[in-house]
Amino acid sequence: MNSVTSLFAPVEKDLSLLADNLKSLVGARHPILSAAAEHLFGAGGKRIRPAIVLLLARAVSKDREILLKHRRLAEITEMIHTASLVHDDVVDEAAVRRGVPTVHSSFGNRIAVLAGDFLFAQSSWYLANLDNLTVVKLLSQVIMDLAEGEIQQGLNRFESGLSIDAYLNKSYYKTASLIANSAKSVGVLSGLPESQSEQLYHYGCNLGLAFQIVDDILDFTSSDEVLGKPAGSDLKSGNLTAPVLYAIEERPVLVNLIEREFSQDEDFKQAMELVRSSRGIERSRELANQHVHKALECLQGLEESDSRQSLVDISEYILRRLY
Amino acid sequence: MNSVTSLFAPVEKDLSLLADNLKSLVGARHPILSAAAEHLFGAGGKRIRPAIVLLLARAVSKDREILLKHRRLAEITEMIHTASLVHDDVVDEAAVRRGVPTVHSSFGNRIAVLAGDFLFAQSSWYLANLDNLTVVKLLSQVIMDLAEGEIQQGLNRFESGLSIDAYLNKSYYKTASLIANSAKSVGVLSGLPESQSEQLYHYGCNLGLAFQIVDDILDFTSSDEVLGKPAGSDLKSGNLTAPVLYAIEERPVLVNLIEREFSQDEDFKQAMELVRSSRGIERSRELANQHVHKALECLQGLEESDSRQSLVDISEYILRRLY
Repeated sequence: MNSVTSLFAPVEKDLSLLADNLKSLVGARHPILSAAAEHLFGAGGKRIRPAIVLLLARAVSKDREILLKHRRLAEITEMIHTASLVHDDVVDEAAVRRGVPTVHSSFGNRIAVLAGDFLFAQSSWYLANLDNLTVVKLLSQVIMDLAEGEIQQGLNRFESGLSIDAYLNKSYYKTASLIANSAKSVGVLSGLPESQSEQLYHYGCNLGLAFQIVDDILDFTSSDEVLGKPAGSDLKSGNLTAPVLYAIEERPVLVNLIEREFSQDEDFKQAMELVRSSRGIERSRELANQHVHKALECLQGLEESDSRQSLVDISEYILRRLY
Repeated sequence: MNSVTSLFAPVEKDLSLLADNLKSLVGARHPILSAAAEHLFGAGGKRIRPAIVLLLARAVSKDREILLKHRRLAEITEMIHTASLVHDDVVDEAAVRRGVPTVHSSFGNRIAVLAGDFLFAQSSWYLANLDNLTVVKLLSQVIMDLAEGEIQQGLNRFESGLSIDAYLNKSYYKTASLIANSAKSVGVLSGLPESQSEQLYHYGCNLGLAFQIVDDILDFTSSDEVLGKPAGSDLKSGNLTAPVLYAIEERPVLVNLIEREFSQDEDFKQAMELVRSSRGIERSRELANQHVHKALECLQGLEESDSRQSLVDISEYILRRLY
């Protein structure tokens, strides 16, 4: 199995229904946003987050049925994720994401801010109408964490003294919180005992961290073409990730290059080479590996099923992206 | 009594506590946002929305006490309002608001989008932690309405066929929904019977509409200095309000000027004169007057108190702004 979407077989139809719902939700009522909606929820998206929600919903239910409230939760998860991407691209002034021009570069700041606000608003409304205060709290914490993550990323730019713990913390805010809290919400909506919902939280949390670490490694090991954006963009903008932080321990000269913000010719090129030739990549892989294994342990309590198997495969696929 | 803030006497200390809370909430934890927080929650703000929430909370309670959850509701109301202003200013590319440069013009789009997202996120979190699903639904509807209002305003630019009903609808989304639903939430949090909470909703709704209509009149009748922005800015940007819509009925030539988006010399100046010399201003005053009277009727069920008197005075003050 090579592509991530083939891992989603047990929920393939559910995901295409979800994409249609999201497109019509944003686009049909508001022509001004319809191009943005097609752009955001069209064929390009991988829908990993809603896929995890739907797979978990099937995996924990006795008859492998997905309830309407699970579908809504999957939509909310994708809307929150998309809203935060659209606003992040405004904040970071990113021109492309996964090889596609961003909403703000295609349609302008105006539409990007509106589309993000609309998606956040719609997700709050759906959320309130799930009629479950525990889930409202879990997901509103996610929205806080995403804002916090974006702000921390701004504060810590070119901060070469960042610890791996602080990096993981930032990655939790940016990526893992949404997957963890959505996963836990599946359990809450299915009426699982608290301890089992907590296991789903830890599955999502570790999977999310592994996912982010792998993304951060690929920023150093992939080509511009595969990434759909220039390699090393994170480093260049001062967003320091696991490979660099480990590399700094071996190659202290990196600190100088980072602290002068790559202001001299060749600084950035030299920094990329220093990271690539260090053990930073290998140690980051090790870190991602640890989190994938923790994620897999959390699945042990689930009954055997196709959906459970997909959740295992997704976890392992994350590491395979590196080879 | 001349200034609006002197109307808030029964909750003056509560409002200054609220301003301190909001400033430290946004600013202290995030130096990157502290200048924006000072700017947003510093001395300049009128805090009409949280004042109404706090006054209603006192007016409906037997012992005139404000509960902690009412204070939180007042903070949430001000945060939602401020977040939407900050993002509106990005969307509308507004340079000044009430004579003060906007967050996006002072600190850039980046900080403006972040600050707005942070405030929306914080308000969702506070909201969830009020532990009242009815209030969560009321306020998440407001967040939807604000997004809808901003999108509609974009769609209806230079739409000279706009009806007064459509204008009131847009004003509900933009302004009245927040005041109405916050007012109703006061009743819900105080455990009032549904019919009494509904009365608070109608008070807020009519007050909000009157407030917006008066603002829209002042855009034609005030000077740049008093407005703190160029007079006629709404008309210039194609946001058609009550005075213009009524004026069109008397002076059909306005339609041509609007539909060519004031593209010829003197178009805009001529349009301003046509509106100012029409009965549009007077008929808009009449409309505001009707809504103030409806708002006052909704207060009849409340016991006599200083706070109730302030709520009456605020309603009347809104009309006095015109003279």
